[in-house]
Amino acid sequence: MVRVAILGATGYSAKELIRLLLAHPEAKITALTTRQDDQPNLGDVHPVLRGRLDLKLENLDAAEVAKRADCVFCCLPHAASAEVIKELLPLGPRVVDFSADYRLNDAATYTKWYDHDHPDAARMAETVYGLPELYRERIVKSQLVANPGCYPTSTILALAPLLKAGLISADGIIVDSKSGVSGAGRTPKANLHYPEANENFSAYGVGSHRHTPEIDQVLSDFGGKATEVVFTPHLVPMDRGILTTAYSMPAKAIDAAAILAELKKFYATEPFVRVVDGLPTTKDVTGTNYCDVTARVVRGRVVTISVIDNLIKGAAGAAVQNFNLMYGFDETTAL
Amino acid sequence: MVRVAILGATGYSAKELIRLLLAHPEAKITALTTRQDDQPNLGDVHPVLRGRLDLKLENLDAAEVAKRADCVFCCLPHAASAEVIKELLPLGPRVVDFSADYRLNDAATYTKWYDHDHPDAARMAETVYGLPELYRERIVKSQLVANPGCYPTSTILALAPLLKAGLISADGIIVDSKSGVSGAGRTPKANLHYPEANENFSAYGVGSHRHTPEIDQVLSDFGGKATEVVFTPHLVPMDRGILTTAYSMPAKAIDAAAILAELKKFYATEPFVRVVDGLPTTKDVTGTNYCDVTARVVRGRVVTISVIDNLIKGAAGAAVQNFNLMYGFDETTAL
Amino acid sequence: MVRVAILGATGYSAKELIRLLLAHPEAKITALTTRQDDQPNLGDVHPVLRGRLDLKLENLDAAEVAKRADCVFCCLPHAASAEVIKELLPLGPRVVDFSADYRLNDAATYTKWYDHDHPDAARMAETVYGLPELYRERIVKSQLVANPGCYPTSTILALAPLLKAGLISADGIIVDSKSGVSGAGRTPKANLHYPEANENFSAYGVGSHRHTPEIDQVLSDFGGKATEVVFTPHLVPMDRGILTTAYSMPAKAIDAAAILAELKKFYATEPFVRVVDGLPTTKDVTGTNYCDVTARVVRGRVVTISVIDNLIKGAAGAAVQNFNLMYGFDETTAL
Amino acid sequence: MVRVAILGATGYSAKELIRLLLAHPEAKITALTTRQDDQPNLGDVHPVLRGRLDLKLENLDAAEVAKRADCVFCCLPHAASAEVIKELLPLGPRVVDFSADYRLNDAATYTKWYDHDHPDAARMAETVYGLPELYRERIVKSQLVANPGCYPTSTILALAPLLKAGLISADGIIVDSKSGVSGAGRTPKANLHYPEANENFSAYGVGSHRHTPEIDQVLSDFGGKATEVVFTPHLVPMDRGILTTAYSMPAKAIDAAAILAELKKFYATEPFVRVVDGLPTTKDVTGTNYCDVTARVVRGRVVTISVIDNLIKGAAGAAVQNFNLMYGFDETTAL
Repeated sequence: MVRVAILGATGYSAKELIRLLLAHPEAKITALTTRQDDQPNLGDVHPVLRGRLDLKLENLDAAEVAKRADCVFCCLPHAASAEVIKELLPLGPRVVDFSADYRLNDAATYTKWYDHDHPDAARMAETVYGLPELYRERIVKSQLVANPGCYPTSTILALAPLLKAGLISADGIIVDSKSGVSGAGRTPKANLHYPEANENFSAYGVGSHRHTPEIDQVLSDFGGKATEVVFTPHLVPMDRGILTTAYSMPAKAIDAAAILAELKKFYATEPFVRVVDGLPTTKDVTGTNYCDVTARVVRGRVVTISVIDNLIKGAAGAAVQNFNLMYGFDETTAL
Repeated sequence: MVRVAILGATGYSAKELIRLLLAHPEAKITALTTRQDDQPNLGDVHPVLRGRLDLKLENLDAAEVAKRADCVFCCLPHAASAEVIKELLPLGPRVVDFSADYRLNDAATYTKWYDHDHPDAARMAETVYGLPELYRERIVKSQLVANPGCYPTSTILALAPLLKAGLISADGIIVDSKSGVSGAGRTPKANLHYPEANENFSAYGVGSHRHTPEIDQVLSDFGGKATEVVFTPHLVPMDRGILTTAYSMPAKAIDAAAILAELKKFYATEPFVRVVDGLPTTKDVTGTNYCDVTARVVRGRVVTISVIDNLIKGAAGAAVQNFNLMYGFDETTAL
Repeated sequence: MVRVAILGATGYSAKELIRLLLAHPEAKITALTTRQDDQPNLGDVHPVLRGRLDLKLENLDAAEVAKRADCVFCCLPHAASAEVIKELLPLGPRVVDFSADYRLNDAATYTKWYDHDHPDAARMAETVYGLPELYRERIVKSQLVANPGCYPTSTILALAPLLKAGLISADGIIVDSKSGVSGAGRTPKANLHYPEANENFSAYGVGSHRHTPEIDQVLSDFGGKATEVVFTPHLVPMDRGILTTAYSMPAKAIDAAAILAELKKFYATEPFVRVVDGLPTTKDVTGTNYCDVTARVVRGRVVTISVIDNLIKGAAGAAVQNFNLMYGFDETTAL
Repeated sequence: MVRVAILGATGYSAKELIRLLLAHPEAKITALTTRQDDQPNLGDVHPVLRGRLDLKLENLDAAEVAKRADCVFCCLPHAASAEVIKELLPLGPRVVDFSADYRLNDAATYTKWYDHDHPDAARMAETVYGLPELYRERIVKSQLVANPGCYPTSTILALAPLLKAGLISADGIIVDSKSGVSGAGRTPKANLHYPEANENFSAYGVGSHRHTPEIDQVLSDFGGKATEVVFTPHLVPMDRGILTTAYSMPAKAIDAAAILAELKKFYATEPFVRVVDGLPTTKDVTGTNYCDVTARVVRGRVVTISVIDNLIKGAAGAAVQNFNLMYGFDETTAL
């Protein structure tokens, strides 16, 4: 039984993570933290979990967390996350970080997109990007795993195999993503007020969303050629789910069947990627750790469509998948 | 042409009011106010109105408002509203007040439900409750009209004629109302954050909602017998619309046909109440100033069902209807 | 390991049931049926289950079902369900019936509300109503269990303990329920077409909904006095969830604290009923087998508010709970 | 006063059109048709219009329509529309056609995308595409106007000025559009059943949507160079609104400011296109005839974002705008 702590347990990803871990036969949640001063019961923070786990959210320091837990899931905001993790790691626990802090390899890129210096830059390059479908072997051996962003997961799973196989060009890739509102977090904001977000559809962060360098990096690394995508996220009036429509140029004459065949070959043994012939919808994966993906060729352009549940495969589910790999459990346990 | 000012123009009711008045051939909006210090353009506050009216929202005092406008629509919160109106009235303008300040006749009742003394108590009893279907003649002659609450409008229009005709008892009336989220206003709150309110249904203010004494008062006044209702409002995951299901005891043996006949007779010449045989839905009245109402008898209990658009018949539309009456325009103008 | 068949596996309740049973360590799904002629794969019928269970939906007769399964979950429409079940039972399997066929004890009542004679009337009176919180002991020993309706579950769990304890009167109970759209089933209909049901709220089946006699019967049986409720169901623009607001007369002078205390006492050891002090929302129980319930006293009337997920505690979860009881598994397994 | 007939008055576009025309001081609706045999009242077909117009929907032939109306709005499906219109035109009425029948100039293209021969091919090339912002002068003089498709309107208004000005290349344009569900029409379908479409986001018609050749044609015509777009429509869980994100290559070095300047210049005197600096959302135009559009340059790619209400600027509003032009009324009347 692995003792587990969750830092920053008030958000949506943490709620989903707790729900998943409560059904995990090898995990025992022993600490939940918040940076607020009161110590609310879990059931008051997340009413859906009322009566399922008798724990308070506490304001704990790294030493206390390390004492109580073997594995720490860190759901803090960027920067705050690295500040804690650099204290935690020398004390022994293994860590899955939900923030963006250890996803990028390069400190300068981080500074450019996040507008501040990285609190633990030395550890960036060596930390594995926790997408099991691409980096499973490194995850297994890691003390620290950077859980991927939600948009990047949906994008990379569709494109990386095609870049790797040389079927599409690394140049001119357009990533048009659409996400449910839970991806924007739990803090009330004017544009997320129900009567504003409901019955509304919008683009945001055009050309400036922080998931961009993360997509660039992994596609470049895995495809073997420097890649810069044009990334446009959009907000969909629904709770959860991401659909990414990506447009790329074929690297050679190719049809949809060949692309689907490559994707099916690449993911043949993967438990959580389903390459489908039809057009997947976000509801096909709601509440699951699956990524469904398909591809078409339209007027000489490759169009891939991929869907995930942003809170599961895009956050908490991926974290549990990484946890399973790190501790040698069946990768699908509790998923 | 009547020069019109709108005080507190940032909210949803004000937005709807501006939209209606822009199509009114006899109204000209000459002032919009906000209590904030910056002076935003209307189009920045309400993007849907961009380019339709070139006005800033200004922080104006009563004297300036009175100088610019013949009629003032006051969309301020309770208490703040009465504070301004008692300054405005002696300066001449006629006023339609969206707040609850002048709806109740009795200062003690106001204090009990609103937790503070009324700023202008002397004017309470003499001010007409602006529901044209019940008080048209008084509205026509009034300098100040108290625009009704949204829940009370939907409730009173269904029950008042039946009380008046002696068809139902004034005792034991239960009012179970359901409202879209715009009724809760534009200020972001935790429970109105999109991922909290979406796909969710809840009761709130059980036994304590401030529309209760307003319903009591009008039903008592119109029915001629002291009435206290049990009122339970609920929040529906949609932008707008109220449906009220009310349960009352018949005062004598009666069937649904007789109740419907009474309602049809009562509203025979009303332009904005449609007594229907089928079950009305909120979407039947979305974007309109209509109230649709029907009735059934179930196991000896009278069940009435009524629907309005909370922002129109429940707020801005009623205000325009009152405005039309006050100035002698056709009552349906711009509605 | 119990071999399980699911009859009528195309609907929403069946989808939810399959999802739950796939995580049940003691159940193995061995047959899925449809009355259609083609034999679609499960993943084509319910894309979210793609790749999780390699079974076709087949058109099987009772004998074949009995051969393949120890326990049969019957998700067929009323009448069709009893027709199959009366064939199945003599062949040995235990059965959980999702339809209304065996919920009522009285054939005449059934005929009155369902407009046809009962196909297996002799078995009605002896069949247990599968609400574990009220009838656990009988469920444990039954070959056939009538899984409760969704509205009745939400209603009965709030009111039955109060009737039993003599805190409320059996007369004049009003049940105002609100349900998400999945409760209306998977068949496309004009009023459930997205642009009709979205942003809309409506009452339906006023005075005629078939869950009425079911509520009457259980409240009468458990409260010990003939009870006829006024029941009004409403449609909420959301996928799932029921909130029931019930109004009853106290049988003696009583306050909310005493009612809450009685509910807490009654449900003290129940794993799936949470008596809460605050006002529960449907989202507090979404995706769970919980019923959250609270109570207030408003102007001398008892107001209870209860919420369930209509597809789980109101259907598939209740069925799994019954299954666990019937086979001696921990009652919370897979829930 | 122009006497107006609406053919095929049961759908969402017709409902919106009737609503707009009821407020038009120069239009009088004199006939509504349906191809069904019963003759329902308008209020039964569209409850929101109950009591607003006392007309039945009738099954009328062309001769009768021509007798009753000066102007005919045809809301019939493609092919059915041309069949009626070719009979109507010789009888005298002017016609605004909502279908796709007269939008394309080329019969072979029509046959390729619509899978049948055009019933009135000779009239295709001469019929004006009813987008006033591009073809106002021809509309004014036309007996028949082809009202544009909703997706094309949102796409063309963003891109045509940039092509015309030579700022973007005609090659490699990607059009990623997202539409509310009303665009799919009023006929219930499995994928538009509320519990399927709600909380779901999907792509559809990838590479095969019939609005593709319409976009191609107008961009080619207006830009002066053959253009073939990659067009991907998506379904958003909301009633109405389209947002189109289009990606194109600059034809020369250019920044966002220059593109916005060009758009502002082009639309300087247009009443219904608002070029905005911020990112527009669909709710900014809900219920209006506006198209809001903006542009960015991201990593060397031009990204335009445009929004319309698909039922107004994308259908009924455009039709009224055309009607106003055809009859010499102020172009904004009733809009």
